Amino acid sequence: MKALFIIIDGVSDRPNPELDGKTPMQYAETPNLDKLAALSITGLHDPIAPGVVPGSDTAHLALFGVDPLVAYTGRGPFEAAGIGMDVKAGDVAFRANFATVDENRIIVSRRAGRIKEGTHELVSLLEGQTIEGVKVLIGKGTEHRCAVVLRGKGISADVTMNDPKVDGKPIKQFKPTADSDEARLTASVLTKFVEFAERILPGSKTNADRLQKGKLAANTMLVRGAGVSPHLPDFSTTHGLNAVCVAGGGLYKGVARMVGMDILEVPGATGGLDTDLDAKVNAATRALEKYNFVFLHVKATDNLGHDGNAVGKAEFLAKVDKAFAPLISLPDDTVILVTGDHSTPCPFKDHSADPVPIMLRGKQQRLDDVIKFDEYSVVRGGLGRILGIHIMPILINEMRLGKKFGA
Amino acid sequence: MKALFIIIDGVSDRPNPELDGKTPMQYAETPNLDKLAALSITGLHDPIAPGVVPGSDTAHLALFGVDPLVAYTGRGPFEAAGIGMDVKAGDVAFRANFATVDENRIIVSRRAGRIKEGTHELVSLLEGQTIEGVKVLIGKGTEHRCAVVLRGKGISADVTMNDPKVDGKPIKQFKPTADSDEARLTASVLTKFVEFAERILPGSKTNADRLQKGKLAANTMLVRGAGVSPHLPDFSTTHGLNAVCVAGGGLYKGVARMVGMDILEVPGATGGLDTDLDAKVNAATRALEKYNFVFLHVKATDNLGHDGNAVGKAEFLAKVDKAFAPLISLPDDTVILVTGDHSTPCPFKDHSADPVPIMLRGKQQRLDDVIKFDEYSVVRGGLGRILGIHIMPILINEMRLGKKFGA
Repeated sequence: MKALFIIIDGVSDRPNPELDGKTPMQYAETPNLDKLAALSITGLHDPIAPGVVPGSDTAHLALFGVDPLVAYTGRGPFEAAGIGMDVKAGDVAFRANFATVDENRIIVSRRAGRIKEGTHELVSLLEGQTIEGVKVLIGKGTEHRCAVVLRGKGISADVTMNDPKVDGKPIKQFKPTADSDEARLTASVLTKFVEFAERILPGSKTNADRLQKGKLAANTMLVRGAGVSPHLPDFSTTHGLNAVCVAGGGLYKGVARMVGMDILEVPGATGGLDTDLDAKVNAATRALEKYNFVFLHVKATDNLGHDGNAVGKAEFLAKVDKAFAPLISLPDDTVILVTGDHSTPCPFKDHSADPVPIMLRGKQQRLDDVIKFDEYSVVRGGLGRILGIHIMPILINEMRLGKKFGA
Repeated sequence: MKALFIIIDGVSDRPNPELDGKTPMQYAETPNLDKLAALSITGLHDPIAPGVVPGSDTAHLALFGVDPLVAYTGRGPFEAAGIGMDVKAGDVAFRANFATVDENRIIVSRRAGRIKEGTHELVSLLEGQTIEGVKVLIGKGTEHRCAVVLRGKGISADVTMNDPKVDGKPIKQFKPTADSDEARLTASVLTKFVEFAERILPGSKTNADRLQKGKLAANTMLVRGAGVSPHLPDFSTTHGLNAVCVAGGGLYKGVARMVGMDILEVPGATGGLDTDLDAKVNAATRALEKYNFVFLHVKATDNLGHDGNAVGKAEFLAKVDKAFAPLISLPDDTVILVTGDHSTPCPFKDHSADPVPIMLRGKQQRLDDVIKFDEYSVVRGGLGRILGIHIMPILINEMRLGKKFGA
């Protein structure tokens, strides 16, 4: 059997006055999701645990069957993986910003005036350094954001950041937070790397252009969020799955890559409102020919939740539903699982700990009488209220790949 | 946002023949609780875990978000905290009874004939001892009960009790249960303290009065329930809450104090049937002006369960409901959570592991179709079946104070 594992990011919500007191899932016309609900066993899951507000990274780990309380080592590795860097277990990874300092190294702008263009050049100028035997990799994120990955022997994540977190303060020193050679080496490498950046960046074409236009120069780099890249279990060895990811957003591809999925690049998959949903669904269903596990991620529901745009979220969800029409006719040897990674209620404009609807269409499975896929209907579902970490084992069981514990 | 966290002790029950096969929650007229249920998301919780019979102390720890499997170090520290002693982390605390021994140190009465009066004098006679460098603190409980707290270096909870647990047997020796200097010192300090008590107590005015009236003298002390007082996380640092407790019963104030709540003394709050419920509700709602977390505890439902008095329990619950009328009009920026700490079914006359109804009224929250607050109705509730330890995180999420795990 095969599996199509669909995550609609931040899809679940709370009642919204703009939607007559309904949630976007309740309000949107979703005939295909509802048809699937009727064919599925449904329920709610707490991505991490009841009451714990999930991040997208920790939630995806849990939903991929990896305990985030063990595997989540800080934002750095996930940020780096998310922008497409091939982070390896043992690398020490950081989030980083291009920033602006004055001649006294006081932070003028932590985001270099939210620099948008030219960061490709800046990154290319900083690439390829090896400092004290440690390789320094750098990857470009959106706008001022990038990631720094240290690779080599004798490094650790026990270092402070150089980011004072507010403008107007002096840039900080990297300091070891443990009394170890590894911590001292890491602090030294980062210090020299930022010194190097401050020597090189001012002479860039990008900064020359910016100064000419009266913009702030991206003349330093703030580094934070240290984490040792964890060794995550691989989908193929753990579950015997040949898995692929269809996603627009970088983080989702990154986490998928970390658990050993192939990444299918789909033209038009942007991770935004303008994403080509039909192309993604088409790519996902076709990938089922080659892979026995396809992860399909839809992002914009979360963005709309962060914006507090309940009407937009309901409208986008209706579009998602239309694009999902082909799923109904997938043969029953393909398990279809649809859920969210967390709730992003429009009234919160952020993630919340509210549990997330889930439905699983298997073969000759137990059903329930839920025929609508929304936060309220699935309360009566046959899955009850489960944890995020339980989802992969349940899916694996439905694929009849479950290994017996005992005899 | 603010929160009013209400525990009706032992409120949940089982069907009782005296109530036409209904539970007290089902039988009692509770229009206000039911109105609140209609405005709430409801469900059931297992205070510790399914099938585990909770104590009042362990249940309250869990409901305050502290894992009792980690933090519960024996009854002593909680008993001591419960009678108002300022137990510090690291103290070794014990439950104790005034008791009567004959000239051969055979126990005549483990409770000194259930002594009620004069124990204040007895405690004052025993106060202020330092034995082998260890401070011995003593606190007065109800009737024959008190608590002994050892404070100092080099002590432990690895000692046996001197209580033979039945009348007619000789008082026991304190013995170390570990081969350690700490255990030996503790046994020695307790032995000398009880020797001291047996020298001092016979000469008390209280005992002279008792003998004259033909009552048993409180001429020794039985000590049991050793526990090292745990270091509990503080509500203010853990959750950023400014919390206060409104309770009659000592134990509840004690646990509340241990997690960093202020204690509001309310005249008429007795922890019994005669408690002034209106005064407590009034104090709790007024405390919401100063505090952002108010814990309101109602005790007598549990007492009536222990008595097997189902009719009395239903009647008292109806009174509680009347007193709760003002809660309905609390503004929606106050989260209202109502639950019990465990079930005390009248047919058991003791605590049981039956899960406990819970309801949470938040702001713009998901609801369910439950409109009655009882054991049967909440089975269909939107919270499902959760653990006691999950309640605080869910409440914190509802207060929008939840910290994201990950990004």
